[in-house]
Amino acid sequence: MKLLLVNPNITEAITAVMVEEARRVAAPETEIVGATAAFGTLYIENRAEAAIAAHAVLEVLAEHVDGFDAAVVAAFGDPGLVAARELMDIPVTGISESALLTAWTLGRRFSIVCMTARLRTWYAECVAEHGLAARLASVRALDVPVTDITRAREELAEPLLALCQRAVVEDEAEVVILGGGPIAGLAHRLAHQLPVPLLDGVSCAVPMAEMLVRLQVRPPTQGSFARPRSKPAKGLSPALTARIHRD
Amino acid sequence: MKLLLVNPNITEAITAVMVEEARRVAAPETEIVGATAAFGTLYIENRAEAAIAAHAVLEVLAEHVDGFDAAVVAAFGDPGLVAARELMDIPVTGISESALLTAWTLGRRFSIVCMTARLRTWYAECVAEHGLAARLASVRALDVPVTDITRAREELAEPLLALCQRAVVEDEAEVVILGGGPIAGLAHRLAHQLPVPLLDGVSCAVPMAEMLVRLQVRPPTQGSFARPRSKPAKGLSPALTARIHRD
Amino acid sequence: MKLLLVNPNITEAITAVMVEEARRVAAPETEIVGATAAFGTLYIENRAEAAIAAHAVLEVLAEHVDGFDAAVVAAFGDPGLVAARELMDIPVTGISESALLTAWTLGRRFSIVCMTARLRTWYAECVAEHGLAARLASVRALDVPVTDITRAREELAEPLLALCQRAVVEDEAEVVILGGGPIAGLAHRLAHQLPVPLLDGVSCAVPMAEMLVRLQVRPPTQGSFARPRSKPAKGLSPALTARIHRD
Amino acid sequence: MKLLLVNPNITEAITAVMVEEARRVAAPETEIVGATAAFGTLYIENRAEAAIAAHAVLEVLAEHVDGFDAAVVAAFGDPGLVAARELMDIPVTGISESALLTAWTLGRRFSIVCMTARLRTWYAECVAEHGLAARLASVRALDVPVTDITRAREELAEPLLALCQRAVVEDEAEVVILGGGPIAGLAHRLAHQLPVPLLDGVSCAVPMAEMLVRLQVRPPTQGSFARPRSKPAKGLSPALTARIHRD
Amino acid sequence: MKLLLVNPNITEAITAVMVEEARRVAAPETEIVGATAAFGTLYIENRAEAAIAAHAVLEVLAEHVDGFDAAVVAAFGDPGLVAARELMDIPVTGISESALLTAWTLGRRFSIVCMTARLRTWYAECVAEHGLAARLASVRALDVPVTDITRAREELAEPLLALCQRAVVEDEAEVVILGGGPIAGLAHRLAHQLPVPLLDGVSCAVPMAEMLVRLQVRPPTQGSFARPRSKPAKGLSPALTARIHRD
Amino acid sequence: MKLLLVNPNITEAITAVMVEEARRVAAPETEIVGATAAFGTLYIENRAEAAIAAHAVLEVLAEHVDGFDAAVVAAFGDPGLVAARELMDIPVTGISESALLTAWTLGRRFSIVCMTARLRTWYAECVAEHGLAARLASVRALDVPVTDITRAREELAEPLLALCQRAVVEDEAEVVILGGGPIAGLAHRLAHQLPVPLLDGVSCAVPMAEMLVRLQVRPPTQGSFARPRSKPAKGLSPALTARIHRD
Repeated sequence: MKLLLVNPNITEAITAVMVEEARRVAAPETEIVGATAAFGTLYIENRAEAAIAAHAVLEVLAEHVDGFDAAVVAAFGDPGLVAARELMDIPVTGISESALLTAWTLGRRFSIVCMTARLRTWYAECVAEHGLAARLASVRALDVPVTDITRAREELAEPLLALCQRAVVEDEAEVVILGGGPIAGLAHRLAHQLPVPLLDGVSCAVPMAEMLVRLQVRPPTQGSFARPRSKPAKGLSPALTARIHRD
Repeated sequence: MKLLLVNPNITEAITAVMVEEARRVAAPETEIVGATAAFGTLYIENRAEAAIAAHAVLEVLAEHVDGFDAAVVAAFGDPGLVAARELMDIPVTGISESALLTAWTLGRRFSIVCMTARLRTWYAECVAEHGLAARLASVRALDVPVTDITRAREELAEPLLALCQRAVVEDEAEVVILGGGPIAGLAHRLAHQLPVPLLDGVSCAVPMAEMLVRLQVRPPTQGSFARPRSKPAKGLSPALTARIHRD
Repeated sequence: MKLLLVNPNITEAITAVMVEEARRVAAPETEIVGATAAFGTLYIENRAEAAIAAHAVLEVLAEHVDGFDAAVVAAFGDPGLVAARELMDIPVTGISESALLTAWTLGRRFSIVCMTARLRTWYAECVAEHGLAARLASVRALDVPVTDITRAREELAEPLLALCQRAVVEDEAEVVILGGGPIAGLAHRLAHQLPVPLLDGVSCAVPMAEMLVRLQVRPPTQGSFARPRSKPAKGLSPALTARIHRD
Repeated sequence: MKLLLVNPNITEAITAVMVEEARRVAAPETEIVGATAAFGTLYIENRAEAAIAAHAVLEVLAEHVDGFDAAVVAAFGDPGLVAARELMDIPVTGISESALLTAWTLGRRFSIVCMTARLRTWYAECVAEHGLAARLASVRALDVPVTDITRAREELAEPLLALCQRAVVEDEAEVVILGGGPIAGLAHRLAHQLPVPLLDGVSCAVPMAEMLVRLQVRPPTQGSFARPRSKPAKGLSPALTARIHRD
Repeated sequence: MKLLLVNPNITEAITAVMVEEARRVAAPETEIVGATAAFGTLYIENRAEAAIAAHAVLEVLAEHVDGFDAAVVAAFGDPGLVAARELMDIPVTGISESALLTAWTLGRRFSIVCMTARLRTWYAECVAEHGLAARLASVRALDVPVTDITRAREELAEPLLALCQRAVVEDEAEVVILGGGPIAGLAHRLAHQLPVPLLDGVSCAVPMAEMLVRLQVRPPTQGSFARPRSKPAKGLSPALTARIHRD
Repeated sequence: MKLLLVNPNITEAITAVMVEEARRVAAPETEIVGATAAFGTLYIENRAEAAIAAHAVLEVLAEHVDGFDAAVVAAFGDPGLVAARELMDIPVTGISESALLTAWTLGRRFSIVCMTARLRTWYAECVAEHGLAARLASVRALDVPVTDITRAREELAEPLLALCQRAVVEDEAEVVILGGGPIAGLAHRLAHQLPVPLLDGVSCAVPMAEMLVRLQVRPPTQGSFARPRSKPAKGLSPALTARIHRD
């Protein structure tokens, strides 16, 4: 099985971190390939950056997706996820949706812990847009500045864990999700220090994608996720144009 | 990996059908063992039968669970699922919860198609109790009598498919779930005849359980899914009593 | 009028406490008879114990209900209540549902105050499952250990009252419900010390049951509360089997 | 026990009909006294008429309530009910709220059947404002003109029953409420012809009021239903002025 | 354009304050005329006073509305607003509805800051009844007594601003609404001291009314806001009677 | 006042239609300037096209916004609206949000009528994402193919009106919104043929923008709509890059 992990921000080092975690959790026979957005921002933490990233995700997928069995949109907040599902013929999972759905099986209330205050607002909106806010206990954010996003995993481990513990004690979270692509893998490392399950997005989205492939779910030919009809386009890459303007 | 599939009704033939489908979708290295409720009804289609089944599920698990890595509660409606998660130290998935969460990744609106009118009411309540009703387009039920529940898979294939098609056309379902343990595997057989993804519970619950095992999620020691404190009990099996009254 | 009060846990002393409170509030012409679960736990405070209790309630009712005009399921959380309504031909009320509905007529926001942290989680879920969470201000729980559940009413009066007062001041509860069968009658004793109405379940469920009898509501022959069709059963008491397998 | 039944419209004949039904369901020791709005409209079927009626209800209560143990606001839609609870020291029930709460104990989905299309809209809003819309299956209305509201009970019995039956079959109502003061008592007469419970407001509101009296619930001294502080008023009756401007 | 500003309480000085603020924000060509309730209370802060005010608003409108292009119901909480829309042929806006809708365009979460604790409860209910509670962060109230409501704007400026700041910091409000007619214009004066937009009702309701006039929206002849059919009335002013009993 | 109308699709002819309607409803002193997306599709009718359009809207605004007092995002569905509010210092309204908020003041239930089935799904999602779905009666779509989107206004007038009438009769819409930029102005032309108010987006969004300018609402410096901190970007236009990477 070949799985394309799409990093919606422009930072290759973050792609590398996420691919590493994806490989850790993937089945032995799954091949993971990373791809990074061609335009956008260093990392994504608000609606404006997410709007740009959603477009970038479609471009990455259009260019790279051929030959893959499934794809993962690998920024927490899932920019472009539902749009990608309209245009692509393979299953696409998102790291926040996958973490939320996994949390659903493990407790009644979950919290998301993330790196910056701005992420907090955006993540809360994302959970609501997924229709999965009913069990959201809280979204908690660090207020320390992130000096180097690629080293966040090391620098922020301790304060993030402290925040997870507060989510358990003060917000009564029964599951905690570490939100943010750059800290992929941290949940796995810290899990044994928390009295409730600790998840992150990449480690949930990869097996979720594998599962959809295994179920052999075919792309719909009806409804709002069927391929849209062809339509003239302008200013997009040839690969994306070809998916939109098909005749 | 060893996975215990618990049939909450008393009919061994249904257990066999579900184990067969579970084996089809399980990873090659997963061993599936079925276990059938020791008390209850022929099959489950209302709140009263589900209440009895929930207790029966706890008894089956208490007796058989040692040595397993995960368990599946294999009646649509998930009787006893959340109760089981309180008492057991391994991940437990349910066939309706798993199908609902999978549907979430494939479309905006899903319908459940089932065998009897009474199931319809109960399934709708179950979806609401899971907190997953926001995208429910409809629950549709056959109104033909089920002469022999163990042969439902054969006898009802055609009318169930017709109902799935109506759910797509009239209710605008973008995903359809065939609800009911006795028809496990039917979704796989009929999927190519429907223009949207067709799921059933067993084929979703097994990989979902495998995924939770792979994520090495540890049982919580805090919150409402931590093991309850010990308490005197009466009239239960020794195995279940031992899980409740632990000192 | 004859009213059967069903205690879903196995502790006869609690049955006695609740029957005493039921007699205090019942109309003079109402006869109250208590019945205790034949299996289950000392008292009920989580989903697993409630699942067992729901089954036990059906068994108690099947065995004792003949000749009664109505029944009360007398554990806060109402285990087995909706299941009982499916199988029985007389009105059945539950002590938490009745308290919630009564609270609805007395204020906009209500709080539930209970004995243990675990009850808190389960009660909150119960309120949501009744579809009555819209006005729930809080569920507050003591964190002192209950040494002897049958003496809770005496030992815990003071700390429970303190918690009620906090619910009024901090959570702005306009009605407070003391949750838990073992403390039946305490609300009546403490009510004059609280600036808002203080309710408990037994004192609401008994007149609610009397009211349904007086309204001469007949059992439905259609819909999800009509008696289910007959179905083979196994491992249940003869009385319950007779209600499920009727031919 | 003395119970004041307040008719929020100006038609004494409707008051008489409702008092008759109230006496039928009241406990033998309960005395029912009717009182009719001094201003307003012939009957109430929209927001504007209800706004006037709410004020009229406060005037009626202020003038007549002394010496009563409880009061019933007897127009479906409950004009002035929550306002009355703020100003009065005795329990006040409303005929729609009481019917809705009673329906809650009898089924999962209820429908309201009423006399005119305009009532339908207003009733649906009322249910939502009570926070009890979660189980509303439908509000159905006759479209025949009401020639004489005081004879509605006779003239409309048959078409209203037909509508109730459609609510059961087409909307899957498990309880039906006949909405509208002028048809008080009709539910009792037609109930045996419907396969699910049929309720009306007066017969639910009277025992609900009796129950609140029996529970000896005291008026709150805190929260939004405590008596408001005194405030100068103008243009109101001396009785209502005295309740608002108390020093 | 002629715009009638209706003050639902009896205090002419408050009418004057609101007319002044209305003139400040109105288009140059808009003429503002104020009218004060003929009966009711000094100001409005609970359900009972609002119920009386709703009737008073209908009376004021019936008497004064001829010749106006639009009207504003100018008490926060909008007493009588929806009733007025049923009876009047011109657009009617309300000061709380207008502020809420404007807030919707400026942030995701808004808070209302008001003068008394009792207002707080009532305002929260009003927001819910408008169906606009989804983004309500908090309603915060002063607890200082209001010695003279007509001087509130001066006396309370500082403590109200402090409360607005707490709403931003503690409740994460992204928009703050100063609620209450007597403090009309204060938002404009204090806005530059708050890091998020600060609104009040009058300054939103006036341009909203102008906009509806400019859109030339015609009164509906169908649905629940079409003029109600004629109906006998009693005890109302000739002007209001004429609108209700039209033949 | 200068107002920038941004067309998120690439079709200049549609920009022209919308600018024409904007000028019709704008105040005499308002200057309207149109700007068209530099990349994207002929028109927008699904999530993928909207994702691209959201990015395009940010690019258009970054390039053109200097010197304007407000902007309107002029595609129904409001692609990029909330993102634009984060990055821009002037008020930005959207044509669907504005129509929804205006509908709120005119009736309890509104329907949206649009040109294609795919729009229907996407519009329903947009309403939900705005948190304004509580009063949505229906979204109805034509199923005729649109041969030339720029002539839709003429060709589709009749079938769209027929659909509006069905929304009133069958869905009980009390307000109807014609959704879609290409048919701007059609609502104004057809309004007199419908028994309830008929709105479209451009005619609501322009006065709403004017109102926000008149209120002198300042851009927030706190909360999730404050300008985001500066961050390196790549592959964006110099104008947009300058807004994101500010140092």
